[in-house]
Amino acid sequence: MHASSTRVRVDLGPRSYDILVGSELLDRVGRVIADLGRTTQAWIVSDEHVAPWYLSRVCDSLKECGIRTDTWVVPAGEPSKSLETAAAGWQSLIESHADRGTVVAALGGGVVGDLAGFLAATYARGLRFFQIPTSLLAQVDSSVGGKVGINLPQAKNMVGAFHQPIGVVADVGTLRTLPPREYASGLGEVVKYGMILDAPFFTRLEAEAEALLHQDAEVLCDVVARCCRLKADVVEQDEREESGLRAVLNYGHTFAHAFETLTGYGVWLHGEAVAAGMHCAAVLAAQLGLLSPEVVGRQAELLRRLGLPIHPPKLSPQEVVACMMHDKKVRHGQLRLVLPTEMGHVTLVDAVSPEQVVAALHAAAEREFAS
Amino acid sequence: MHASSTRVRVDLGPRSYDILVGSELLDRVGRVIADLGRTTQAWIVSDEHVAPWYLSRVCDSLKECGIRTDTWVVPAGEPSKSLETAAAGWQSLIESHADRGTVVAALGGGVVGDLAGFLAATYARGLRFFQIPTSLLAQVDSSVGGKVGINLPQAKNMVGAFHQPIGVVADVGTLRTLPPREYASGLGEVVKYGMILDAPFFTRLEAEAEALLHQDAEVLCDVVARCCRLKADVVEQDEREESGLRAVLNYGHTFAHAFETLTGYGVWLHGEAVAAGMHCAAVLAAQLGLLSPEVVGRQAELLRRLGLPIHPPKLSPQEVVACMMHDKKVRHGQLRLVLPTEMGHVTLVDAVSPEQVVAALHAAAEREFAS
Repeated sequence: MHASSTRVRVDLGPRSYDILVGSELLDRVGRVIADLGRTTQAWIVSDEHVAPWYLSRVCDSLKECGIRTDTWVVPAGEPSKSLETAAAGWQSLIESHADRGTVVAALGGGVVGDLAGFLAATYARGLRFFQIPTSLLAQVDSSVGGKVGINLPQAKNMVGAFHQPIGVVADVGTLRTLPPREYASGLGEVVKYGMILDAPFFTRLEAEAEALLHQDAEVLCDVVARCCRLKADVVEQDEREESGLRAVLNYGHTFAHAFETLTGYGVWLHGEAVAAGMHCAAVLAAQLGLLSPEVVGRQAELLRRLGLPIHPPKLSPQEVVACMMHDKKVRHGQLRLVLPTEMGHVTLVDAVSPEQVVAALHAAAEREFAS
Repeated sequence: MHASSTRVRVDLGPRSYDILVGSELLDRVGRVIADLGRTTQAWIVSDEHVAPWYLSRVCDSLKECGIRTDTWVVPAGEPSKSLETAAAGWQSLIESHADRGTVVAALGGGVVGDLAGFLAATYARGLRFFQIPTSLLAQVDSSVGGKVGINLPQAKNMVGAFHQPIGVVADVGTLRTLPPREYASGLGEVVKYGMILDAPFFTRLEAEAEALLHQDAEVLCDVVARCCRLKADVVEQDEREESGLRAVLNYGHTFAHAFETLTGYGVWLHGEAVAAGMHCAAVLAAQLGLLSPEVVGRQAELLRRLGLPIHPPKLSPQEVVACMMHDKKVRHGQLRLVLPTEMGHVTLVDAVSPEQVVAALHAAAEREFAS
């Protein structure tokens, strides 16, 4: 098959990098990394689901370019984003004699990327990092922007860093081996980009929901590249989430993190939790008079067509709110939430009261919003 | 007593900060932090030796400026720079409801600074960090430049980050409560600055060794401020140890890290290991024909007058070399060492052979070099 690709540039001064999106790109990883220079070794992190499909292809591609490869494979799933796994990873880096000529490469989904990136950010005070995302979620979200980290038992992503990759290769062909539920989970983040930044893109998603569900390669490439561009635009303006702008990407996520924490990591997939979280946020926005019920309905309908949940998990709303108060966006003990105001626009709302959140959780659990 | 102080500016663009060096400065910490803005909480890390002397003074100073304080006290000594202690620290940060209005403050020596800085670098992807060094080693070295981290069982400082503080307050009065051996250990790093960067400063140290040993406040302030300025000059030019320039600060340290690792963390104090490491490096430089034996002798004599060891610990030289090969400066499997060429100058020597290092270790263990 002919290898076609789209290049998305993330412009961050000395930390700039390219995201290559396309089909049949895995065999080009070695050349891409070699062309970035200075690399003698690639230390590749993958998981037990992804490694059997793609690890040897990536290793071969690197070896052909004269780069020594060492691999470290972790169990698939969120529990691998733990301190215990990170400790084993640092150990493995020592045993692989990693040094400043080493590139840490993540071959897998968001868990592998976040874990590998955290190891890269902290080993020897920072090794270079390369992303080869193989899940839709990672291709459109977690592999772009430099957020890396692990979970604490009480709080997701609480230990981490901003550590930009030196490059990203997103091969949409790898999505064919993704379990359908994980693929749908990634579509949750795709819908998010439309909601927060790009109304025409949302409309296109409504029109091409079927093509997306069937992984039409051309549509998928366009959609992934568009999501990367939208995320890159935000990250370029607020790399370290300081100005508040980057916070728009957290639409639905304060709810989602609480859902994931309280149900136990791995019970809900991240994108599923985000889908339900976006629905809760939209319902809350409507209750506060910020958003029309029609937009709440369009979002709910598209999420459901894409196979995603919209109702929050069965939890005590009070418990959910208490958990949300641990979120990193909490400042001076006040809840701050990203809420939609119209299709393609969100705003950061300070000082949402716990009672308002509880009311939205009740409404999102009970009422039907699909148009 | 009148509070006098010298300000040393570390110019790192958006990450610039001031180091305040002087006497009776602890009561001014609250004002200094408050003047930097945005701080609602100080989360103060100290150790069991330092906390009883100074923690309440620092807390009072912060509270007077309207800053809430939470404290976390760890056992004194290198074993606290462990993953287990870091995990407890992240836990404590959660329990203290740390958020982006929090400043993590380190009140103590290098261990407390490195540990607290690592927690600050990684919690919630980065909290602001403030240093209040109370050991000579920390005042002249570890509190300046942003290196933070913890140890792995096999390798010192192997997990960490570059995370600059937003400010440093170095009160030389706190050195009066330092055990004499720890104070002398700090003098090892002071001698290092003369050797690597400043021949007149080395001559001054030779002249004022007695005043330094007796902690003459005026001499001490001048010496600490001079060391901070010298280190800042280097860090400003090579913040992340990329150009090779910052590596000069590691003079003696590749040996020292191996001594500390192989004798077990905490058996040799860091500055003691550095003193013996500098002696080994100087002996090696002389054996390679890079340095005159007279300079080797001057360094050995000054170190001994200041109460520092020069002979390496009784270890197999082969084992020491094997351990040195794990150093972060190793590139492509080749040993690279910072070696002196004349008083006030060092150079980075690539591809030193294991045999040459073994020979230097033998010579440094056996021969007398004092002039």
